[in-house]
Amino acid sequence: MSSYPPGPRNRIREFDLIRQFQGTYSSNNPFIAQGIGDDAAILRPRSGQDLLITTDVLCEGIHFDGTTATLPEIGYKAAVANLSDIAAMGGQPQYIVAALAIPPSYSSADIRGLYCGMMEPCHAHEVALVGGDLSASLSKLSISITVLGWANVGRALKRSGAKPGDLLYVTGTLGDSLAGLKILEASRTDKAPRSRKAMERFLIMRHLRPTPRISIGQCLVQARIASSAIDLSDGLSGDIRHLCQASCVGADIDANTLPLSPQCRAYGAQLHVDPIQWALMGGEDYELAFTIPPNKQRGLERLSQRCAVPLTRIGVITPRRFGIRVVNRDGSCGKLPNTSFEHFRSSSI
Amino acid sequence: MSSYPPGPRNRIREFDLIRQFQGTYSSNNPFIAQGIGDDAAILRPRSGQDLLITTDVLCEGIHFDGTTATLPEIGYKAAVANLSDIAAMGGQPQYIVAALAIPPSYSSADIRGLYCGMMEPCHAHEVALVGGDLSASLSKLSISITVLGWANVGRALKRSGAKPGDLLYVTGTLGDSLAGLKILEASRTDKAPRSRKAMERFLIMRHLRPTPRISIGQCLVQARIASSAIDLSDGLSGDIRHLCQASCVGADIDANTLPLSPQCRAYGAQLHVDPIQWALMGGEDYELAFTIPPNKQRGLERLSQRCAVPLTRIGVITPRRFGIRVVNRDGSCGKLPNTSFEHFRSSSI
Repeated sequence: MSSYPPGPRNRIREFDLIRQFQGTYSSNNPFIAQGIGDDAAILRPRSGQDLLITTDVLCEGIHFDGTTATLPEIGYKAAVANLSDIAAMGGQPQYIVAALAIPPSYSSADIRGLYCGMMEPCHAHEVALVGGDLSASLSKLSISITVLGWANVGRALKRSGAKPGDLLYVTGTLGDSLAGLKILEASRTDKAPRSRKAMERFLIMRHLRPTPRISIGQCLVQARIASSAIDLSDGLSGDIRHLCQASCVGADIDANTLPLSPQCRAYGAQLHVDPIQWALMGGEDYELAFTIPPNKQRGLERLSQRCAVPLTRIGVITPRRFGIRVVNRDGSCGKLPNTSFEHFRSSSI
Repeated sequence: MSSYPPGPRNRIREFDLIRQFQGTYSSNNPFIAQGIGDDAAILRPRSGQDLLITTDVLCEGIHFDGTTATLPEIGYKAAVANLSDIAAMGGQPQYIVAALAIPPSYSSADIRGLYCGMMEPCHAHEVALVGGDLSASLSKLSISITVLGWANVGRALKRSGAKPGDLLYVTGTLGDSLAGLKILEASRTDKAPRSRKAMERFLIMRHLRPTPRISIGQCLVQARIASSAIDLSDGLSGDIRHLCQASCVGADIDANTLPLSPQCRAYGAQLHVDPIQWALMGGEDYELAFTIPPNKQRGLERLSQRCAVPLTRIGVITPRRFGIRVVNRDGSCGKLPNTSFEHFRSSSI
């Protein structure tokens, strides 16, 4: 609204920024007829492919703060949060657009750093920046990212395909991200910086630089193995609930089988905490949970040998009436605690 | 990041909201294989069509505030800002995703109102909500919208196609939105609400409920008439500059020909202001500016008779070396003032 009283006269020169982005991130991609620089980007759909679209908004003080992550790290994770959604559908991410609301205290270099971090996991998967928007913000930084990708027509993995009797798997290890965050939070109060142990560095990296499971998602689709999938962004207990709700099923999860990294176990021991709780409740692992019919088990073993990501069976899908149960380490069985964000924080729709 | 200290415990029940949105805005659309409710929506591209994508972020206190617009009105304009970008490319908008960062003071009803307003111009053009994200914000409201649409392969209108000798046109009338905003701003200080004149109501409506020029954009493409186009969101003087830069041309604009509504003229007279200045500088008219080769003039006349939107020739494209000039009402000729936002406010890339 042009004649509003001017917003903060930011040091950022908007058109300089735009030109830099055009130069840096424009891509000679056959699926982009025209990228950044017009009213809209012009994309060329892949024939015989469905288009996947996902969006996330991340707000300073809610999803991130500057005490535990730098701006490139924040940008990196913001991109991964969306790439991981495409991975969970078994898709190939292709395009990213980013809209930022930027407080006056941020410099042009800050924003470049944020974009740099954001584009790092994108470059790794040939995902091109095709547009965005930059606005001054009178308050906090917010980052809104939309990622688009492709999947063969009718073949994208959904949350809704799980059937009773299907086996429940996860990729990688769980709880590392939360453990890494705990280390970063604890070090806020350190008076002097100290050298970190390899265990701490591993967990911090898992928190700050998670890997979107794009290849394994695509392999699951190509091998026609998975009946449903979801990415673990809010924590296993919350995300399995979403999958079960979408599929109208229950699940039995064996806590003993949850895959933990040696580093996560070691840090749990150091804190006298059972890391299984981190694996159940911790968010932002960006691993995939998926189900397969029992007769696909051999196919999954072959796939597991081919791909470098460990796949762990953690439970079984049950009829809905049984709810979502967890068998604890001590053999006791109870309802899976609902510890995903009950408070209003963020929710993709 | 799951274990961050909880954000504001908002009154909004996130999953209730999500279910409401699923119910209200899901669409039986052949171009949506799966809408809201999974990690990503699954869209079915139209064969032989390019995909257009545009995004905008609007921030409280920068692009809008609650003193001159209600939340439904803010939502309405946020959608139109993006629909208008697709219109400028001659495209057919099809999908919308919206990511909101919501301060604790907003109620669930507030957010419903915002969505309601946002979806109003979308429904009018069969644009379906296919996803989004809701997050708590520790500070101000921000609204990030992405709209996708279709255009026949290789036929989308660009800013970059204008050639010297082409004629420059605009749709509708200019300056109304800024005049309407001035009325709203003036009425902030009114002690008692007063009944508005029809003239004021018209200009306020033009400010709060602009019309995205989707049909005329498509007609220009179908008739293969336009060589370039841009939507007028930042104000004619700024947007013509963008078009000229993208096309590597200059332009001569005749200020005498700028189309003004009778209401805009009347309000200008009341304020002893030349409304031509509003037409040149005022933003958010969401009209289109476009160029045509001189030999397409007759075709444009036929098109103009068919469509209900007035089309006005306001100038001619010149070689780049002449710059962008304006012939004023008094016959004097000068450079077009560059009054688009020099301060950093918002900039699509």
